[in-house]
Amino acid sequence: MKLVPLGDRVVLKQLEAEETTKSGIVLPGQTKEKPQQAEIIAVGPGGIVDGKEIEMNVEKGQKVIFSKYAGTEVEADDETYIIVRQSDILAIVEE
Amino acid sequence: MKLVPLGDRVVLKQLEAEETTKSGIVLPGQTKEKPQQAEIIAVGPGGIVDGKEIEMNVEKGQKVIFSKYAGTEVEADDETYIIVRQSDILAIVEE
Amino acid sequence: MKLVPLGDRVVLKQLEAEETTKSGIVLPGQTKEKPQQAEIIAVGPGGIVDGKEIEMNVEKGQKVIFSKYAGTEVEADDETYIIVRQSDILAIVEE
Amino acid sequence: MKLVPLGDRVVLKQLEAEETTKSGIVLPGQTKEKPQQAEIIAVGPGGIVDGKEIEMNVEKGQKVIFSKYAGTEVEADDETYIIVRQSDILAIVEE
Amino acid sequence: MKLVPLGDRVVLKQLEAEETTKSGIVLPGQTKEKPQQAEIIAVGPGGIVDGKEIEMNVEKGQKVIFSKYAGTEVEADDETYIIVRQSDILAIVEE
Amino acid sequence: MKLVPLGDRVVLKQLEAEETTKSGIVLPGQTKEKPQQAEIIAVGPGGIVDGKEIEMNVEKGQKVIFSKYAGTEVEADDETYIIVRQSDILAIVEE
Amino acid sequence: MKLVPLGDRVVLKQLEAEETTKSGIVLPGQTKEKPQQAEIIAVGPGGIVDGKEIEMNVEKGQKVIFSKYAGTEVEADDETYIIVRQSDILAIVEE
Repeated sequence: MKLVPLGDRVVLKQLEAEETTKSGIVLPGQTKEKPQQAEIIAVGPGGIVDGKEIEMNVEKGQKVIFSKYAGTEVEADDETYIIVRQSDILAIVEE
Repeated sequence: MKLVPLGDRVVLKQLEAEETTKSGIVLPGQTKEKPQQAEIIAVGPGGIVDGKEIEMNVEKGQKVIFSKYAGTEVEADDETYIIVRQSDILAIVEE
Repeated sequence: MKLVPLGDRVVLKQLEAEETTKSGIVLPGQTKEKPQQAEIIAVGPGGIVDGKEIEMNVEKGQKVIFSKYAGTEVEADDETYIIVRQSDILAIVEE
Repeated sequence: MKLVPLGDRVVLKQLEAEETTKSGIVLPGQTKEKPQQAEIIAVGPGGIVDGKEIEMNVEKGQKVIFSKYAGTEVEADDETYIIVRQSDILAIVEE
Repeated sequence: MKLVPLGDRVVLKQLEAEETTKSGIVLPGQTKEKPQQAEIIAVGPGGIVDGKEIEMNVEKGQKVIFSKYAGTEVEADDETYIIVRQSDILAIVEE
Repeated sequence: MKLVPLGDRVVLKQLEAEETTKSGIVLPGQTKEKPQQAEIIAVGPGGIVDGKEIEMNVEKGQKVIFSKYAGTEVEADDETYIIVRQSDILAIVEE
Repeated sequence: MKLVPLGDRVVLKQLEAEETTKSGIVLPGQTKEKPQQAEIIAVGPGGIVDGKEIEMNVEKGQKVIFSKYAGTEVEADDETYIIVRQSDILAIVEE
């Protein structure tokens, strides 16, 4: 099964988050949304979305930080994907 | 009875979701909206919707993932259809 | 008494909904808005509405599905009408 | 005292609603907003309102249906008027 | 002390409202916002406000009806003024 | 430490409000937002803000009335400043 | 690991806030959002964001005041970064 995103949507596969920081310190609880790392699996074609021309600036294989409460989880072939809009991607992670 | 969608609306027929993952593991409850698979039954003509030119990029017969809380359920001839806007369709599913 | 809608408004007369499905099965309660069938009684002239050019694509006599929570009920001459915007009409019903 | 509405505002004088239907049947309670009949007392000049060109399509003396929760009540000379935007007027009532 | 309003703001001085109607009848409580009469003390220059060209159509000395929940009260020199946007003024009152 | 505001932001320093009116009368509690007087400390360059061209019409040293719930308090060098958008400034106070 | 922000995003590293004022006085609790100082670590390329041309006016190394409730915290290499939109940056701090 293959997910082909429409418009400015991007299909992400979440990377496993390390649960503790290296120093083992748990930061105090915060009301902020928790960001997440993911890998880009597929990128929509862009074009006119909600009446605005959207150019896609990300590509398959990139690791990205996205906003946790954005997007929709999709289960396909035993994997969980997340479909977000490109504007929900905050930054590309380079190693 | 035949539903002819207006503007950027799309008529969907929901596909039955498998209730467990292949591995039988139930993922922990999440507050995210649950996506759904559906087949496209009819596609509106597009055109000017809310003052914006909308081009339709989906077609009858495609299987799609859409946002669960989007759309309106319609019962017709013993079938339940869902009418959504094209922008509520997240991705096309190819096998 | 005759209702002449303004702008992109459409006057509807609700059709009686069958309360059970043909198979007699009651679908489980859902939080979705319930759609409704209605007949179009009168159609506004369209034109500039909220600063956007609106073209009317429906006509008197058509049966339509509209969003239940849209619109305003009006009682006139012992009949109950519903006045909605054209964009609240989801699909035309053809038999 | 005379009320001269600004922009796209319209001054209405509410008509007394009959409290029961002709058949005497009370329709079951609904969460919908209750529409109301009124007579147009004065019409603003239109023009640019919120950055959009508004043309006035109603005139003094017309009976109209308007959305109950729209508008502001004004008491003047022992009369109660309602000032609404033209877009809150749903339909003109012709007899 | 003199208040010089910016943009589309208008400085109003509230007129004392008569607490009963001439006929002495208290109208039943309503959830609507209560309008108020005021005199215009100063008018802003208009111009580009929130990216839209605003032309000022009211002038100092006019009596107006404005929406009660709009605006900000300002105390200056033992007087209470209200600063509203021109679009919060519903009608001019002529005697 | 010097605060250099960006875009249409303005840095204000709040003036101490007299707690009673000259006549010593406490006006009855009101649900309206309380306005405040402040002095302008620094003015942003304006330019394109949220896609709209903003021209700055206030200048350093002016006393202004601004909307209390607007803006962000900043502590710097033992002083408390408030950073607001120019559109949150209601009027200039001239003595 | 390096964070490369997209569009109008800016990567910030929070500076430690002094917990008391120099005079040691705790200002009374306020419902306002608390601002924060941070250093700019990386700046997105700007360009078309939500259909509007955005020019970036901040640069790496600047100290800025930003709105606390804006942005998303990201943990990377034992550091906590905050990714905000440029419009969430209120002012540049010069020493």
